[in-house]
Amino acid sequence: MSWKKIKSNIVYSNPYFRVLEDDVMQPNGKEGKYFVVGVNDFVSVIAEDGNQDIYLVEQKRYTIQSMSLEFVAGRVEDNEEAIQAAQRELKEEAGIRAQNWKNLGYAYTSNGITNQRFHVYLARDLEFGKQELDPNEDIAVKKFSIEDVRKMILDNKIIDGPSIVGFYKFLEYRN
Amino acid sequence: MSWKKIKSNIVYSNPYFRVLEDDVMQPNGKEGKYFVVGVNDFVSVIAEDGNQDIYLVEQKRYTIQSMSLEFVAGRVEDNEEAIQAAQRELKEEAGIRAQNWKNLGYAYTSNGITNQRFHVYLARDLEFGKQELDPNEDIAVKKFSIEDVRKMILDNKIIDGPSIVGFYKFLEYRN
Repeated sequence: MSWKKIKSNIVYSNPYFRVLEDDVMQPNGKEGKYFVVGVNDFVSVIAEDGNQDIYLVEQKRYTIQSMSLEFVAGRVEDNEEAIQAAQRELKEEAGIRAQNWKNLGYAYTSNGITNQRFHVYLARDLEFGKQELDPNEDIAVKKFSIEDVRKMILDNKIIDGPSIVGFYKFLEYRN
Repeated sequence: MSWKKIKSNIVYSNPYFRVLEDDVMQPNGKEGKYFVVGVNDFVSVIAEDGNQDIYLVEQKRYTIQSMSLEFVAGRVEDNEEAIQAAQRELKEEAGIRAQNWKNLGYAYTSNGITNQRFHVYLARDLEFGKQELDPNEDIAVKKFSIEDVRKMILDNKIIDGPSIVGFYKFLEYRN
């Protein structure tokens, strides 16, 4: 036996996510509720230059009330493909265009409460230009060696889960 | 300039998470809203036996309408320490007690929308007993070699982000 959907009910929404209180059949055969945060997919982008350095962005993350160093990331808009979102976000957040793109896989952020999925992309053959930030974004682009990023992950200085997943998919791909 | 909290407002809640629509000062100096899914921390537990095999659990995840193979995980209840949650969840979900515990770090699942954080634990010196599942849980315990888990991650067969983070923190710790 496992969870089966009877009926989906949107009980809350804002421009970024919604909450569903679905009527479900539980594994024990009884009817119940399952609470889901419904969110669009997003992308996480690792940009690597010809010197084997990689580019991260640093910004204050309001949710955790702290600065966070991460790979470029952003949501896949409705009617947009993940690769398009990756190319758009890398240009907007970091001012970088890339000639060479590779999908390195995907994962879910927290499947106990949300359907949120992210796709990892590697961008190479880079051209550098200006960021195209919203008036509301304050994002610094920073370049690191691969080994420095690894150390920051092990020291809990990089604490963004999707970036950590992306980094190791990148390391495995390079090996 | 960066996001500053003016006032937190809970606009929705259920037993598992809540939604905040906070009044904030935006990086551009104007007042606005920030939407946050507020959730307790959780733990992700890697149990390794004396043969260097590791134990995962498989269950249907309603949110993604699919089976998912993951490390034992569960939320840190109010007034519970993360290590206590790790010990409790490993016993309940997998029927395993461990003599030897090591914290391998932490990360956030998706800091654009939620404060949800997870703590990674390694459990060793294992004793095997019976699962203590809720009537509502249907969870199978499965044993794998480390290399098999690595392959399943690279093949997108393990797609739980926190488990992937946990696995590589474990690999780095062993090296």
